[in-house]
Amino acid sequence: MHRSTSDNAPVQYLLFLGDTTEHGYAKTAFGLRDWAGDRCVGELALPAATVTTGLPRMSARQAREHGAGAMVIGVAAPGGLIPPSWVPCLVEALEAGLDIISGMHDRLADVADVRAVAERHGRRLIDIRTPPPNIPIASGQRRAGRRLLTVGTDCALGKKYTALAIARGLRARGIDADFRATGQTGIMIAGSGMPIDAVVSDFVAGAAELLSPAAPADHLDVIEGQGSLFHPAYAGVSLGLLHGSQPDTFVVCHDPSRTHLLGYPDCALPSIEAVIAHTVALGRVTNPDIRCVGVALNSSALTTAAAEAEMAALQQRLGLPVADPMRPGAQFERLLDACTP
Amino acid sequence: MHRSTSDNAPVQYLLFLGDTTEHGYAKTAFGLRDWAGDRCVGELALPAATVTTGLPRMSARQAREHGAGAMVIGVAAPGGLIPPSWVPCLVEALEAGLDIISGMHDRLADVADVRAVAERHGRRLIDIRTPPPNIPIASGQRRAGRRLLTVGTDCALGKKYTALAIARGLRARGIDADFRATGQTGIMIAGSGMPIDAVVSDFVAGAAELLSPAAPADHLDVIEGQGSLFHPAYAGVSLGLLHGSQPDTFVVCHDPSRTHLLGYPDCALPSIEAVIAHTVALGRVTNPDIRCVGVALNSSALTTAAAEAEMAALQQRLGLPVADPMRPGAQFERLLDACTP
Repeated sequence: MHRSTSDNAPVQYLLFLGDTTEHGYAKTAFGLRDWAGDRCVGELALPAATVTTGLPRMSARQAREHGAGAMVIGVAAPGGLIPPSWVPCLVEALEAGLDIISGMHDRLADVADVRAVAERHGRRLIDIRTPPPNIPIASGQRRAGRRLLTVGTDCALGKKYTALAIARGLRARGIDADFRATGQTGIMIAGSGMPIDAVVSDFVAGAAELLSPAAPADHLDVIEGQGSLFHPAYAGVSLGLLHGSQPDTFVVCHDPSRTHLLGYPDCALPSIEAVIAHTVALGRVTNPDIRCVGVALNSSALTTAAAEAEMAALQQRLGLPVADPMRPGAQFERLLDACTP
Repeated sequence: MHRSTSDNAPVQYLLFLGDTTEHGYAKTAFGLRDWAGDRCVGELALPAATVTTGLPRMSARQAREHGAGAMVIGVAAPGGLIPPSWVPCLVEALEAGLDIISGMHDRLADVADVRAVAERHGRRLIDIRTPPPNIPIASGQRRAGRRLLTVGTDCALGKKYTALAIARGLRARGIDADFRATGQTGIMIAGSGMPIDAVVSDFVAGAAELLSPAAPADHLDVIEGQGSLFHPAYAGVSLGLLHGSQPDTFVVCHDPSRTHLLGYPDCALPSIEAVIAHTVALGRVTNPDIRCVGVALNSSALTTAAAEAEMAALQQRLGLPVADPMRPGAQFERLLDACTP
């Protein structure tokens, strides 16, 4: 998607942190550092920022000299807008020879100064959240190749990290596996993907079909899930993605420290069993053989001992491998065994 | 939505049939004739058209003299485009003093001649399929008033007609009920609504919340369903609409002559029981009291005797009232009893 035109090598990124003081607003920057660290040459922040990725601080010009091709907006501002205080930095990056990549709802080209400078210097403004034109209505036709989807009991509990960790783990075993991104951070990490939540609802399943096209029989696409079938706002996105992905297998992502949906104090978290049952029942519409192969537990709020106890109890209850993809070891290897086509 | 500005009376329509020769392409015109006949002054067709609604044929100027405020494009052209052969008629309607209302994917203002003439004469070009700006993310919060949703075993088998018939039947019994439209034909019939399949997927449930806002405790919104939870392309739309609508009750619409989904020969029709079970399980996310109150059977392909036998058998099997809303009588009155809050 955003590769350099000369040699088809992935573009190197400078991570822009704006004036961010909230760690949670910088999840794109942290995702890129953690999963595409070899493509991040450094970070750039305004003086007011307190958040850092730990990468070398540098100017846009220095980043260009270090091989960067684009500056990525690695933070979200409240409301999804591009604040005026960022504009001089964006202009400076364009003048230094960098493209700009954004996953915000605001379009870069709608900021007049940014658009004018980009046009003058022939730089690209890449809005990750703009879906491609002419997405078809889903055909529902089975296609070759194998697919695994990460699903969840809620939003924002590890579906992207789980898909990335499974794809990486399987590739390390010599399996032909690709990570398929469906959200802005994932798309920046992968360099391509489909911003599924920005697609018009009639076309969501069709967009998911485009994202993981027909492939050789032994190829596995590991698809980043979105939302939850039991989420009062986003379940439609989750179901369209499930139907279009036609997954053969899925992994349920769960955070045992959550008692209700994030931001929805009146909505109890669904049980893992309910998520499995409904994912199978509805997923059968486009893949009659769909089955759950394991659970990815986000145990970041637990001690190692508590995490291991929780995983053992769940494994016992469900009869499925349970592992935290962020805690490498025998448990995660067993989950990878189950994910191997 | 499109009411005359002077007296807030509903606008009278002239139905435009283009050069249509396929009955199935004119379902908007037939829907308006059947459900908003008192607001249709006549029809206008090109010489090549063979389809007719049976309403008086007249020119745009004559329609204006009969009180029409807008010409409705009552047909869909293959591909959803506005063919050049229609443009002189659209221009003539604008010059005669009519607004134009379209439910097509193509925007009226994207046709240069149409836009220019509309601007010159101060007429409105109303694209029903353009959602309003600033739709919020769904809150999931319960709101006052009661809601009934029509759901289906497939697309295009009577969810709109069923909702319209239930709303009309309940109003005739003195119940404070409104039809809430979610598709282009329904929106033209009602004069307002939400084109739910044109909303960006993240906002579908939020759009459904907007469509049926908080209301007095004894008010009933009868909401037009879309798609099916078991449809490989449109299930995401159906689930977002279900969650945002928070229905207390639902009616399953079914066509006993279908063996597979329309246009999807590889997809078997789900059973009515499966649709009920999954609508209840997923609908509980936003309304724990959701329940099925009956089945609307589209028996248009059956003789009266065969329809009655089919309804009796289904009623026996499901233990729920079963009726064809297009066949008035005791069966439909029992379905209305069950829909009464």
